[in-house]
Amino acid sequence: MPKSPKLSKANAVIGQSGGPTAVINQSLAGVAQALADFPAVKKIYGMRHGVNGLTKGDVVDLTKVKARKLDLVADSPSAALGSSRDKPDADYCARILEQCKALDIRYFFYIGGNDSSDTARIVSELADQAGYEMHCLHVPKTVDNDLMGNDHTPGFPSAARFVATAFLADSLDNRALPGVKINVVMGRHAGFLTGAAAMARELCSDPDAGPHLVYLPEVPFEVDRFTADVQAVYNRLGRCQIAVSEGVQDAGGKPMVQAVYERLGQLGAQMSGLSRDAHGNLQLSGTGLLGDALSEFVKRSVKPKEGKTLRVRADTFGYLQRCWPDASPVDRKEARAAGRHAVKLVAKGVHTGSVTITRAKGKAYKAEYGRQELRDVAAKTRHMPPEFIDGTSNVSKAFLDYLRPLVGTMPQVGVL
Amino acid sequence: MPKSPKLSKANAVIGQSGGPTAVINQSLAGVAQALADFPAVKKIYGMRHGVNGLTKGDVVDLTKVKARKLDLVADSPSAALGSSRDKPDADYCARILEQCKALDIRYFFYIGGNDSSDTARIVSELADQAGYEMHCLHVPKTVDNDLMGNDHTPGFPSAARFVATAFLADSLDNRALPGVKINVVMGRHAGFLTGAAAMARELCSDPDAGPHLVYLPEVPFEVDRFTADVQAVYNRLGRCQIAVSEGVQDAGGKPMVQAVYERLGQLGAQMSGLSRDAHGNLQLSGTGLLGDALSEFVKRSVKPKEGKTLRVRADTFGYLQRCWPDASPVDRKEARAAGRHAVKLVAKGVHTGSVTITRAKGKAYKAEYGRQELRDVAAKTRHMPPEFIDGTSNVSKAFLDYLRPLVGTMPQVGVL
Repeated sequence: MPKSPKLSKANAVIGQSGGPTAVINQSLAGVAQALADFPAVKKIYGMRHGVNGLTKGDVVDLTKVKARKLDLVADSPSAALGSSRDKPDADYCARILEQCKALDIRYFFYIGGNDSSDTARIVSELADQAGYEMHCLHVPKTVDNDLMGNDHTPGFPSAARFVATAFLADSLDNRALPGVKINVVMGRHAGFLTGAAAMARELCSDPDAGPHLVYLPEVPFEVDRFTADVQAVYNRLGRCQIAVSEGVQDAGGKPMVQAVYERLGQLGAQMSGLSRDAHGNLQLSGTGLLGDALSEFVKRSVKPKEGKTLRVRADTFGYLQRCWPDASPVDRKEARAAGRHAVKLVAKGVHTGSVTITRAKGKAYKAEYGRQELRDVAAKTRHMPPEFIDGTSNVSKAFLDYLRPLVGTMPQVGVL
Repeated sequence: MPKSPKLSKANAVIGQSGGPTAVINQSLAGVAQALADFPAVKKIYGMRHGVNGLTKGDVVDLTKVKARKLDLVADSPSAALGSSRDKPDADYCARILEQCKALDIRYFFYIGGNDSSDTARIVSELADQAGYEMHCLHVPKTVDNDLMGNDHTPGFPSAARFVATAFLADSLDNRALPGVKINVVMGRHAGFLTGAAAMARELCSDPDAGPHLVYLPEVPFEVDRFTADVQAVYNRLGRCQIAVSEGVQDAGGKPMVQAVYERLGQLGAQMSGLSRDAHGNLQLSGTGLLGDALSEFVKRSVKPKEGKTLRVRADTFGYLQRCWPDASPVDRKEARAAGRHAVKLVAKGVHTGSVTITRAKGKAYKAEYGRQELRDVAAKTRHMPPEFIDGTSNVSKAFLDYLRPLVGTMPQVGVL
């Protein structure tokens, strides 16, 4: 460590925010363990349900948690402190700052997505304005992999591992009982996680292994092209396995699930409809609507072979994707290291910033940890770059080369 | 092996039928490997897509498959030969017998559920009537665990392992972002697989870990009692995780998914509706309808705490449950052994029968392999016995004691 800057003796607080992941507790443990060796920090608090709990003084003293317990928690999926979907504005952040002052907190670590980095940014600015010395660090987390300035973000590799495994198993199932199988994958605006389905192809001895079609939110979704694509694959193989992002949009940028919902018209009178979250986003996960609607389009438009009936099924992978307990070993390690890196930055005197993970140049895969400004990640969304997309219904070799080192060793399967 | 009875030198055929599982290829390998050491058997054929392929002469010569390849396939989920949902009648079985004669097959092994054992029974009876020497053996398989005369059936322990793991992870997710979470689990008539969700409770350091409510097909489902149950758990914990079988029925024996479908009325005009399979069974898997409808009942009836909004989500686990590549080690071993046992029975001169797995008396878990008549398993369904059910929304300790040795070592997780 370089010569230490002058750092006030005060308490620290760690929070977890947004959708939980399989490794967000690794980042929590990384921050907590690094802080334990940090002379300026007295107590380490954990926010219950992120800043929502903090504003009510609902914190837990992590200094009292035994190392063995913290290690067990680190290896456990989901956010052990509880999470929050709140999107704080300036007033909300003023209350956060007030609680920080009341609890003598000058070290603020927030693990989450772009909304969380925005919270850290506002709190930091309010502290500056008030002349209150405060260190506000953001540790990246998201299964969608949609944070700017990162090669990838902790949580994504594990979710990608789940999705690839699921498609591998399901492709064999679809091969045994042929038909059209649609699997809806998480990812509101970015197609990285849906694209991970394509990794299943290289894990199977079947040259015709699925997924055969991959629909990303970055590529405008057209129902007629979709059913034509399915017809072509079905004609060739007698079956078709499809990966579709929950966030696919039509050419006008309208989410397909919304378009479907509007199209179903009278359904609205009978079902109270999809929810919106606190950010005004339409609920995509936790409902089978998109998958069922796409099934319906296929049943209406795709012609079965002579003498056959068309078997059409849809699964919506849902929340299992983000917290499956078989995390990628690379992801586990990096999530821990990202947490530790946030503390290292503070030790160097850094007041604000978001930890970054980039990929070292060279043949062997290696992650490097850095820092970017909070404003460069806050409330922005990273999409799949064009070189990761192949046509309108596939990902490229470049994407699979990018993904391979992240997911860890995967099962290999054989067919007869 | 005891002294060999006189067995005609002829070919053998192996088929896989019904829903694939994580270990049905172990049974395939078990039969094939045991047959390789069986002097009376010349060629070993595999049916493509079960008896559907066999009647068309679509078979693969398994004698030519290398041992290493067969081992890889054995460890791979789903049915490598392809499966079938056909439910053969006497005419169909006559065509099966005809092909067996044409291919000089006198050893017929069929791996599947109760419909498959019925196929083996009819073929065996037709062969007897025709005076054609034939050995028809059934090897049990089903994730639903609903075959008579067995302690449990291969495929179930691995599916149970998936379901328990999924509930464990999802309970932590539900704890981080509290709300009502409904997970729909496979199991048309038997609640064993849904009940396996309850195993998640003992894997987590949280004394309030889910699932908090478990709904089995064996217990009549009442919507009003369901929403009252949810309200009570929500009032106590601020959240509620629910396991519900896709096969839950009302007091009149009508599947809830059908009741929901009828209740939605006009939806029928816009969506072509749920499919029925070749057996006339209403499609339960591969659609999110039941989960979405139960969500809707909760949204309408359950009152949130003051100042809170109620977050309600449903996931339908779907096909991932039956073919997840992390099979139970016990299940893997037993599925292989069940396949081998079928060949052992033939070596003893047995002409027909279904392999059984029972549990040896004694403290340590041990499986024993036996035989029952095909008619005793064919077209019958085993339900959860009353001692495995606790009230109207839970399984008993006796069920968890029964399940524990089957699923293998499970992850343990911690909370703060």
